[in-house]
Amino acid sequence: MATILQNDHFLRACLRQATPYTPVWLMRQAGRYLPEYCQTRAKAGSFMGLATNTDFATEVTLQPLDLYPLDAAILFSDILTVPDAMGLGLSFEAGEGPRFAKTTRDEASVAALAVPDMAKLRYVFDAVTSIRKALNGRVPLIGFAGSPWTLACYMVEGRGSDDYRAVKTLMYSRPDLMHRILEVNALSVAAYLNAQIEAGAQAVMIFDSWGGVLADGAFQQFSLRYTAMVLSHLRRGHEGKVIPRLVFTKGGGLWLSEMAALDCDVLGLDWTMNLGRARHLVGGTEGGPGKALQGNIDPMVLFANPEQIDAAVQQVLASFGTPHTDPSTTGPTHIFNLGHGINQLTPPENVAALVEAVHKHSRAMRDVTEKV
Amino acid sequence: MATILQNDHFLRACLRQATPYTPVWLMRQAGRYLPEYCQTRAKAGSFMGLATNTDFATEVTLQPLDLYPLDAAILFSDILTVPDAMGLGLSFEAGEGPRFAKTTRDEASVAALAVPDMAKLRYVFDAVTSIRKALNGRVPLIGFAGSPWTLACYMVEGRGSDDYRAVKTLMYSRPDLMHRILEVNALSVAAYLNAQIEAGAQAVMIFDSWGGVLADGAFQQFSLRYTAMVLSHLRRGHEGKVIPRLVFTKGGGLWLSEMAALDCDVLGLDWTMNLGRARHLVGGTEGGPGKALQGNIDPMVLFANPEQIDAAVQQVLASFGTPHTDPSTTGPTHIFNLGHGINQLTPPENVAALVEAVHKHSRAMRDVTEKV
Repeated sequence: MATILQNDHFLRACLRQATPYTPVWLMRQAGRYLPEYCQTRAKAGSFMGLATNTDFATEVTLQPLDLYPLDAAILFSDILTVPDAMGLGLSFEAGEGPRFAKTTRDEASVAALAVPDMAKLRYVFDAVTSIRKALNGRVPLIGFAGSPWTLACYMVEGRGSDDYRAVKTLMYSRPDLMHRILEVNALSVAAYLNAQIEAGAQAVMIFDSWGGVLADGAFQQFSLRYTAMVLSHLRRGHEGKVIPRLVFTKGGGLWLSEMAALDCDVLGLDWTMNLGRARHLVGGTEGGPGKALQGNIDPMVLFANPEQIDAAVQQVLASFGTPHTDPSTTGPTHIFNLGHGINQLTPPENVAALVEAVHKHSRAMRDVTEKV
Repeated sequence: MATILQNDHFLRACLRQATPYTPVWLMRQAGRYLPEYCQTRAKAGSFMGLATNTDFATEVTLQPLDLYPLDAAILFSDILTVPDAMGLGLSFEAGEGPRFAKTTRDEASVAALAVPDMAKLRYVFDAVTSIRKALNGRVPLIGFAGSPWTLACYMVEGRGSDDYRAVKTLMYSRPDLMHRILEVNALSVAAYLNAQIEAGAQAVMIFDSWGGVLADGAFQQFSLRYTAMVLSHLRRGHEGKVIPRLVFTKGGGLWLSEMAALDCDVLGLDWTMNLGRARHLVGGTEGGPGKALQGNIDPMVLFANPEQIDAAVQQVLASFGTPHTDPSTTGPTHIFNLGHGINQLTPPENVAALVEAVHKHSRAMRDVTEKV
């Protein structure tokens, strides 16, 4: 693990340190839009076959890095590994999305929940160590987990949902049971992320994919509070390095000021939030406290042509504005990303256009500022 | 049409005039959660059979009013009647949602679009007149239409969508075609709402159900701009009465300050937005300009028990705070509603609990204020 990191721009931007350009990675960058991924997936036989095999997980994690000059790698896995380790029986039906054999909706099933033995998730930590080795210092590796609320959505519904009726019914009618699920999830997620850190993850991200479906008030009580609980149990560093923490709430723009109180370094944003406004609200000032911001181009921009993608990238960069450039202090920084996972039908060549545009224009932006 | 309106609280609240309690109605209040509706629907044979038959449409519009002391009626119809009249061939598959026979995605199909002959929508205007007559002044009747953007989503996708890939691809890659669709839609919706007003609608509401899926920047350009275009073509009054205009953008909370510039009276909110914050941003002050606010309880609250519903209603009322009570001037007002359409599995008795709680607590709130 003592390999020198050749590209630390992502980690530096997480900690609000100046970088020569805006680092970029893409949520779900190792995925079905890549023919290379589909080939490995076919060899593995199933999604879980892929995720539980160290060699396959390493292979697909590195594929996008071989194709594009991305500034970070993210562990190939799924947020639902944690409830699976709780014994809920995860499976992925073809074209159907994830499904649990057991749902968690009543007193008995909630009482039966417990923080899983992390040994059951050994395949994830092995993958982290293997990927770190394979990366050999090219870029940092991000570990991740679902937020307690987002995991609860799947655990209560038993699968994805359009209206979240089951989980919201439980939340509104039996808040006591809901809080118990969320507490178990928070402690599980914290243990899971700490083990990823010990296995070699250089940053960790919490995906609150479904926080945005909650009502104002319920979000604070049932999502944000338990994300904060996860963070409070996370180790701050490993082997002498600070481990940055990223929190992404899809549809959470309205609660950004409240998320500023989270003990994390980076807040991820979806495409509905204006980055300049987000910077104003939570990005802080040079030398002062604040959050780095990550996001937030609409993944559907990747279905336009390269010139249009280039223009859209420039708009997103301009929306944030020039990040601070003084290496002697911290200040507002931006990590470029999509506002949500990349779509499986995305033309791979358009990803190249996006990454190139981010690097090129974000460098130019800083050069202009420095010359002024 | 000269019938005296016995309950004008909704219309007064729309115009920011004081009312003795907070008026309430529910989006999709005439719908599948009511056994009475399902019976009429069965007689009609199909959704469009129901919507196109004046007697049936009148019957189902009045059903919730006979069951609950709601303060407004809303025309039973569908937002997709307009693109259907454009010749796109609307159908509703059982359990599948709406579908169009033709999609509008290329130069030829966009060029072929035109504002439909309003005679094709005669069944809607006849229903409006019939419902007005049947209401006989009990409560006011709200007419409605989909926003240009929301209609475009269905016209381009051909049906509902999870990711809006087709419509966003068109928007990002051929903005010229998208603008043309939206302009035709805006002029069509304006003509449609004006005809509803002439037929007897006493307020009109624009449903921008899918505005919230747009990126910041795109929302302003492709949704808000065309909602404004509709409003600019609407008649302000009919038979000496002002016709209030309501605009509801699901997921639009982040853009509320920009929506304040719309030439409408009421802004509808979903449950993600804090009503107190919304009031602060756009609700105005006593004697000053501002928007009335409508919303915003999570429809899933209706799956809790009556005591829990009562408590949740109190929270929403408290979040807005006491509306202004001075009859001699205008000021901040609140119209209670769900943050989205009522779920079809909602227990009907819980709707009674909700409506009762709104009336009771909102009266008590004003009494306390007046005594202070």
